[in-house]
Amino acid sequence: MREKLVGTERTAALADLPEWGEVEGRDAIQRTFRFRSFNEAWGFMSRVALTAEKMDHHPEWFNVYNRVEVTLATHDAGGVTGLDIKLAKAMERFAQAAGDA
Amino acid sequence: MREKLVGTERTAALADLPEWGEVEGRDAIQRTFRFRSFNEAWGFMSRVALTAEKMDHHPEWFNVYNRVEVTLATHDAGGVTGLDIKLAKAMERFAQAAGDA
Repeated sequence: MREKLVGTERTAALADLPEWGEVEGRDAIQRTFRFRSFNEAWGFMSRVALTAEKMDHHPEWFNVYNRVEVTLATHDAGGVTGLDIKLAKAMERFAQAAGDA
Repeated sequence: MREKLVGTERTAALADLPEWGEVEGRDAIQRTFRFRSFNEAWGFMSRVALTAEKMDHHPEWFNVYNRVEVTLATHDAGGVTGLDIKLAKAMERFAQAAGDA
């Protein structure tokens, strides 16, 4: 879970996350979520925060009003690991429940 | 409250917020808060979120683990207004309560 994903393993893991893109100049993945309101964005972020804290694996994220820009990477591994994939998938579920447009 | 602060009025308002700085190339103010943990940072952000929603005035903010970088400006006014000062002061109170280091 904490080892950097490389090669076909990395490609396969990211194939399940078509909305996520690579970060330029850094081994990390990113996605921007858009909601109908701050209320909805914050609801999403709150669910993510609890999950992240439980996983002891936290996102880098920027929020303004209904928009949430997320970057995921595993510091200790210097790149994307299974933890990032797991957190990204949880975000996808929460965003769908919250009505991500 | 929704009018852009200028001149001495702006200077006086910001005098109460010594930790806040100007944003380069934009009429906005910013501050970075540091806490002991994500738990503490999130507690702070949650209090700010409720206040912001009640004010219908929202921050631009970036969080990673224990760090929260905040930028405040009033979109409609194209600059810093009384709303930003009010929200910044609320943040100061919450950060102190949360143990901002």
